[in-house]
Amino acid sequence: MSLHWWQGPCQPLDHVARAKAEARQQQLTKPAGSLGRLEALAIQLAALQGSERPKLDRLWIAIFAGDHGVVAEGVSAYPQAVTGQMLSNFVHGGAAIGVLAGELDAALEVIDLGTAVPLEPLPGVRHLYVGAGTQNFVQAPAMTLAQALICLQAGCDSLLRARAVGCELFIGGEMGIGNTSAAAALACWALDCPPAELAGPGTGLDAAGVAHKVRVIEAALALHRPHIAEPLQALVHLGGFEIAALVGAYLAAAQQGVAVLVDGFICSVAALLAVRLNPGCRDWLLFAHRGAEPGHARVLQALDAEPLLELGLRLGEGSGAALAVPLLRLACALHGQMATFAEAAVADRPA
Amino acid sequence: MSLHWWQGPCQPLDHVARAKAEARQQQLTKPAGSLGRLEALAIQLAALQGSERPKLDRLWIAIFAGDHGVVAEGVSAYPQAVTGQMLSNFVHGGAAIGVLAGELDAALEVIDLGTAVPLEPLPGVRHLYVGAGTQNFVQAPAMTLAQALICLQAGCDSLLRARAVGCELFIGGEMGIGNTSAAAALACWALDCPPAELAGPGTGLDAAGVAHKVRVIEAALALHRPHIAEPLQALVHLGGFEIAALVGAYLAAAQQGVAVLVDGFICSVAALLAVRLNPGCRDWLLFAHRGAEPGHARVLQALDAEPLLELGLRLGEGSGAALAVPLLRLACALHGQMATFAEAAVADRPA
Repeated sequence: MSLHWWQGPCQPLDHVARAKAEARQQQLTKPAGSLGRLEALAIQLAALQGSERPKLDRLWIAIFAGDHGVVAEGVSAYPQAVTGQMLSNFVHGGAAIGVLAGELDAALEVIDLGTAVPLEPLPGVRHLYVGAGTQNFVQAPAMTLAQALICLQAGCDSLLRARAVGCELFIGGEMGIGNTSAAAALACWALDCPPAELAGPGTGLDAAGVAHKVRVIEAALALHRPHIAEPLQALVHLGGFEIAALVGAYLAAAQQGVAVLVDGFICSVAALLAVRLNPGCRDWLLFAHRGAEPGHARVLQALDAEPLLELGLRLGEGSGAALAVPLLRLACALHGQMATFAEAAVADRPA
Repeated sequence: MSLHWWQGPCQPLDHVARAKAEARQQQLTKPAGSLGRLEALAIQLAALQGSERPKLDRLWIAIFAGDHGVVAEGVSAYPQAVTGQMLSNFVHGGAAIGVLAGELDAALEVIDLGTAVPLEPLPGVRHLYVGAGTQNFVQAPAMTLAQALICLQAGCDSLLRARAVGCELFIGGEMGIGNTSAAAALACWALDCPPAELAGPGTGLDAAGVAHKVRVIEAALALHRPHIAEPLQALVHLGGFEIAALVGAYLAAAQQGVAVLVDGFICSVAALLAVRLNPGCRDWLLFAHRGAEPGHARVLQALDAEPLLELGLRLGEGSGAALAVPLLRLACALHGQMATFAEAAVADRPA
């Protein structure tokens, strides 16, 4: 049995830095615990960065895009051409994540894993041409094992580029018309859950559209489940190129010791598969928000994840993660810059 | 019957700007509604600012501080001297709100309405010396009518200073050992609710401490309720200097047309009284977070307010409101900077 790269060990947490950060929190001029979850966040980031006073100046956002054969079944409110059109919008700064990356001073990388109609090269986009989108998984496996391995490696490569420039927080985003169907199918397999409980409106299906999507996913699961024994096979049969890349990026982040901020439903499904492939990955994942897609709460629960925001988001692109970044940065600023009781000559409560 | 200044009309919303902002949201390159609550926020800010593309560059944070006579009853985990000590910490940048104001590039004003032991003048603090803290409201009215009017005016004056420098968002914060007791007493009066349902641990009382605090508030309500017919009398009998100032600031903001971001439990109680004094004030109030103090959820419900964050905060100082500012700013950035479907040549879904 061969050992895949992602089965290697993840970086351990720094318990000394965590203990120092915990002690520092107790000395800051505020009632103990009064900054709520921001206190635990600062301590967690200290353990991840190996620094008593963590910081998140350098932020890397990678958008992974790919098309989905299952769109032929009529599971999306938008035409498939939008995937490619949005790639152009990403690099021109007109998409939500482009605006957010600018506001947050984040590096933004756009990776085209494969659109249904291969695109002419777009300046600023990395085109990998893994395939002309995935196959329609109602009829066949979504991708070959070779394609899955290329996508996992593409995610890893993005993380390594982020690491090379000193990235302190990695955000993966996704774009792919139809990808809530693939994500729901994967989550149904991973959680052994019927599609009616996890499939939702995605970008805007009505009730009849959701019911049809449920039947499509049921058919796919009936076809593929006998052939899926572990998460890599699930990605091959039911996944998407961009989902596999996210899985690879998250696994590489944990191995390289880079904190990850996970976005919405699709990214959370990728996180679930990453943790199944290498449980040590979980420590490196922070969760940004609970989105509007109904399956998201279930997937977060399975990951024992309590996200920071709940704003009814359902855009993807990494946008929900980007929106949570200021909270993480402010948690670090408070932790690092507040005066201690001794420094400020303020009386603490009696012990 | 005399007309108080706060009974004058509040600024109307700009329905033309709101309609333009709504139309713009529909054209941005994202599925309709996919930015969840951020879309409604941008539209609301458009109506408040009278601008299709609102912005929140200039932010004003005013911290109102005052001491509370009821601390003599043993209702706080911290000694009363902390109120004055924290004033120094605010202007030296060591307190949470000082760090946040710096990170957000906000103007920070500190107003000492009256500490139990009057302070020597601190550079950077406005000392108003309204009194040596409030009276212990278990024995007497917390303040005189004249003191209440001075505090209301102090809040108004702060808002006018903010307005004079073009402030686009006003945050009021508070500091006052014992002020969750005053706020809970006011909320019990306003909502006709028993203290056991609204009093909480504040900065860190244990269960026995909370039970004692409940009995103290019950005694105060029994003493004062016969003398309270309207919110101004409630402030006189049960309030705090800083709470009255917050009420004045919120009322003046609505009259001057400045959007307000309301912080935690104490500020929300001030907001409730402001809305009771002039219902038109409500339109100008945005709510930042649902805090850890158990009464906060009840007060927010009475205001029909759905805050943006829920992070278990219980610090005060305006810190929870400051933490929500980046979400408002990013909502404005997305609304103002994203490309439309036409600009980006992206296909919208069929109508």
